[in-house]
Amino acid sequence: MQELNDKIKQFGTVLPGNVLKVDAFLNHQVDPELMLHVGQEFARRFADEGITKIWTVESSGIAPAVMTGLAMKVPVIFARKHKSLTLNSNLYVADVYSYTKKTTNRISISKKYVAPDDKILMIDDFLANGQAVEGMLEIADQAGVHVAGAGIVIEKSFQPGGRELRDRGIRVESLARIKSLAANQIEFEED
Amino acid sequence: MQELNDKIKQFGTVLPGNVLKVDAFLNHQVDPELMLHVGQEFARRFADEGITKIWTVESSGIAPAVMTGLAMKVPVIFARKHKSLTLNSNLYVADVYSYTKKTTNRISISKKYVAPDDKILMIDDFLANGQAVEGMLEIADQAGVHVAGAGIVIEKSFQPGGRELRDRGIRVESLARIKSLAANQIEFEED
Repeated sequence: MQELNDKIKQFGTVLPGNVLKVDAFLNHQVDPELMLHVGQEFARRFADEGITKIWTVESSGIAPAVMTGLAMKVPVIFARKHKSLTLNSNLYVADVYSYTKKTTNRISISKKYVAPDDKILMIDDFLANGQAVEGMLEIADQAGVHVAGAGIVIEKSFQPGGRELRDRGIRVESLARIKSLAANQIEFEED
Repeated sequence: MQELNDKIKQFGTVLPGNVLKVDAFLNHQVDPELMLHVGQEFARRFADEGITKIWTVESSGIAPAVMTGLAMKVPVIFARKHKSLTLNSNLYVADVYSYTKKTTNRISISKKYVAPDDKILMIDDFLANGQAVEGMLEIADQAGVHVAGAGIVIEKSFQPGGRELRDRGIRVESLARIKSLAANQIEFEED
């Protein structure tokens, strides 16, 4: 998605440890118009999948997810992240390890908002090691709902998450794909 | 706002401790169309204030804030919440006590995204004791930026936050105002 790639080139910065900092427009300061276009693009790509609900994980996934829900006219659920959470029969839960923060969070979705015939589109801001998406897949599995795929704003394709998901047959649509952050240079995959 | 009051009547539930649960459409499952209308309504009410930026606090403020930013064509910043955060010269920080969770979080906004001539509209999902808004005001004070007011989706007007802010001259616009949750009944202020 050209508009997104341009934003990354203009405002993205590379930090040690292969971190791409995009807090100018995605995960601290947010560009609402860009998010609208991101949501419209996910809606276009997944238009034929009969999506009934968008899932994401708080917090940085919320803006693109809500815009996707707006474009597709379906509700959005953001999974809550907890440092610790007692198991509760009203919640689906999964554990998600963050490589960046080196901590495990438990994510949860209320059973009340999951219907057996749901077709889920998972949305997230980043895909690197794929832990958040794996957590949502685990919850979908518990709930027995169909997952149509994952819409990712920025995929770091030099990390294994995207490949592992595609190898398992999950449809992954990433609007920007970063091939390398070596030597502080942002290098995109050719589309 | 009639559409919002109707949603609260239809889907809101009252929990012990004066908690109004609206996770069907606002802070777990999100209704994107309702959020669009909420954002448009805040934009209408604050149209003459020369707003340059929307501030909110993660996570539940993000959806209404991003829709307000879209309607007003200005960037949105969501303050990050941390259990603990070392002081850092690149961040404005304030401590926010949560009466619901009985914990203090430190919220932060990067100095990089604050300009001296900013006019801030603060957005949040709930106003009860006013702690999150107070935290944002403290940051605005540190940054020396002008705050035009607060746009609140649901104000619990039987709790002191709204009155205290208005007494200090802060313009507070709440789209739904709940007078009482006594006996598990949701009672709205007359508009």
